[in-house]
Amino acid sequence: MRLSEFGRSIRLGGVTVHELQKVIELDSSASRPSHDDTSTSVPCEAIKPIERQMVIIVPCKNEPIHVIEGVLSGIPSGCLIVLVSNSDRDPEDLYEQEVQALRDFCATAHRPALAIHQRDPGVAAAFSAAGMPHIVDKVDGLVYNGKGEAMLMGMSLAALTGRRFVGFVDADNYVPGSVHEYCRVYAAGLHLATSCGSRLASEEAMVRISWASKPKLRDGKIRFDRRGRCSRITNEWFNKFLAYNVGYSSSAPGIIATGNAGEHAMTIGLGLKLRFARGYAVEPFQFVDMFERFGGNSDRRSGRISRTVSNGGGSQVRVLQIETRNPHFHDDKGEEHVQKMWTQALDVLYHSSLTPRSLRDAMGQFMVEHGALKPGQEPARERVYPPVGTLDFATLYQTLCEKAKTFQVVEN
Amino acid sequence: MRLSEFGRSIRLGGVTVHELQKVIELDSSASRPSHDDTSTSVPCEAIKPIERQMVIIVPCKNEPIHVIEGVLSGIPSGCLIVLVSNSDRDPEDLYEQEVQALRDFCATAHRPALAIHQRDPGVAAAFSAAGMPHIVDKVDGLVYNGKGEAMLMGMSLAALTGRRFVGFVDADNYVPGSVHEYCRVYAAGLHLATSCGSRLASEEAMVRISWASKPKLRDGKIRFDRRGRCSRITNEWFNKFLAYNVGYSSSAPGIIATGNAGEHAMTIGLGLKLRFARGYAVEPFQFVDMFERFGGNSDRRSGRISRTVSNGGGSQVRVLQIETRNPHFHDDKGEEHVQKMWTQALDVLYHSSLTPRSLRDAMGQFMVEHGALKPGQEPARERVYPPVGTLDFATLYQTLCEKAKTFQVVEN
Repeated sequence: MRLSEFGRSIRLGGVTVHELQKVIELDSSASRPSHDDTSTSVPCEAIKPIERQMVIIVPCKNEPIHVIEGVLSGIPSGCLIVLVSNSDRDPEDLYEQEVQALRDFCATAHRPALAIHQRDPGVAAAFSAAGMPHIVDKVDGLVYNGKGEAMLMGMSLAALTGRRFVGFVDADNYVPGSVHEYCRVYAAGLHLATSCGSRLASEEAMVRISWASKPKLRDGKIRFDRRGRCSRITNEWFNKFLAYNVGYSSSAPGIIATGNAGEHAMTIGLGLKLRFARGYAVEPFQFVDMFERFGGNSDRRSGRISRTVSNGGGSQVRVLQIETRNPHFHDDKGEEHVQKMWTQALDVLYHSSLTPRSLRDAMGQFMVEHGALKPGQEPARERVYPPVGTLDFATLYQTLCEKAKTFQVVEN
Repeated sequence: MRLSEFGRSIRLGGVTVHELQKVIELDSSASRPSHDDTSTSVPCEAIKPIERQMVIIVPCKNEPIHVIEGVLSGIPSGCLIVLVSNSDRDPEDLYEQEVQALRDFCATAHRPALAIHQRDPGVAAAFSAAGMPHIVDKVDGLVYNGKGEAMLMGMSLAALTGRRFVGFVDADNYVPGSVHEYCRVYAAGLHLATSCGSRLASEEAMVRISWASKPKLRDGKIRFDRRGRCSRITNEWFNKFLAYNVGYSSSAPGIIATGNAGEHAMTIGLGLKLRFARGYAVEPFQFVDMFERFGGNSDRRSGRISRTVSNGGGSQVRVLQIETRNPHFHDDKGEEHVQKMWTQALDVLYHSSLTPRSLRDAMGQFMVEHGALKPGQEPARERVYPPVGTLDFATLYQTLCEKAKTFQVVEN
């Protein structure tokens, strides 16, 4: 894979966020990583070892089986697949169908995999026993519905495998080739950010994906929009936040292009430290949490920040943002979904300890003007869970095996 | 890349056509080719050497530059790109824009490439001088418009490079990942069909692609149809043709699934022997020409064929048909285009020396019933050119360099 060269970056304490890079070629002919003024090449030989250390979490919810099969076919063969399903089990047991499709695929491809259902009472029992009752809804005694919760479950299973990296891929993707590109981008980015030989070598790293375009239906034709409205709103506010915190003038062009990135990957070391937020707040909250946790110990900071939650033990985190070549072709979930996504992003940004009063006021006003908040109300405090690293993993695994009937280990 | 196992095959003299195989995984973790009862794995290590011997021809005509750039990004880095353009040069010189995009891409990716324009007077002069005046329209003295002609030009340039394989990729493809998959399928298939270590080792080979699905707009929603109407019609008649010639009962299930395959690749050795037909007849005519040329020397033949044009010197040709994972997402050129495509396919099949009278009558009736032919008329005889191998390549190259102003050699 060939990526455009690293451009500017912004640093907030231990967190370095790089400007958006682009995929130039989906593969690369070089046999060793190389770079020049305009691009960096990460060969197959560097990507494969990362993939063999990577877990790919696929949160799914009622997607057609053939779409899920396509997604599976695009996940590089070295990666371990973890299906976290919240699909209906009644009147038809869609989860059973998903597991069967996963088993069939893995049997043919000689791959292992894991699968689990979000609303399995045994899963709730296991997380409670392992020290995270927070994720269990007291009303029904099951893990809360929501994407953030599915990701937290996936991250916990990923940690159990002993692998080093974890990535997330949505199940409603109609183009297997784009799933493949995401995973390769994860591996190429994580290689660049963590390998000893790299100029960027960092202990912990995250790779967040920006889509080249998102096909939409308009006037009966397929159009390829470059940016979704949700991304524009989320990124704009994140960049204002960052401009304030590092002291740039507010007219400085924005570095953050992936505030809502559903497709992202990271070192499991980082994943264990981060807190996961509920629902669609999960991805933007990763940025907030990284800045709060690791952003507080820099001599380059402007001093305007007074309440740093924790310096995360001085960890250095590098965030790469990469624009893929493939369009992101998925189900259109409608306007309401779009508003919900940026609202939850703004909720978590609003409540960050690093967000100044003036920015909060502006955000609140924006949300009211755009129908996301009633006048006089405060943005919601999204539920945030303790870091996955606080779990008692031995208890988690044991309880899952004993009580979670949906927990499937596919061996091949 | 992992493919489903080879199923049935049908043999007509020296030509063996394999049943459709499917892509199971876009990559493969194995480090050596391997197969079991259900699948065959072709690793990166086997694919790369084929790619380094492969020329990819991209015929283009007025596609948006960003779409062409996407296609380029998906062509594996080992492959040599040859752009054969028939884009407008007036009022805007789109070809110049294409060449600039190609140069920019190649400079960043450190790749060589070739480009040429179909309607360059110097190209017509070169083909005439090299022994193929047939491709030049006497009316304007330029190479005929049409996809077949673009492909013939591309094949001729491919032959000049000294590489061993050639593949074709349409320029109107919106999904770079699917372009990448096509090229990988070509390489995996050509590896399986021609490598000494393979069970299938054959001197010459062709890989033809069938799309998993073709997204269409219907009732304002995107639907993924499994088969286009054009393919259904073309393949049905090809299978009747084959059933007759190998003596199966006409109810035998059809082997041919790629009669109209625009996406295909072959050994250049085969490409030099085949004749190219004009326009959209080019792809179906490849099957007809292979059967006529190499299908005449088998002891398993039913004896019903009396007029074999040539046995092609006893060549063994293996045709693999492979269904990709990615949907084929391109411009909808409308109903008229679809009818033109299957009409030209049926034209060449109708006039094959291997097509019996009874099948011709049935085809003629079908074409009349579906508005592709007026009652009492005979299907058109599509223009067919001599094999590319008959060209005087030294003269072709010399004349191109001297006279074809659009002929661009991009070196990096």
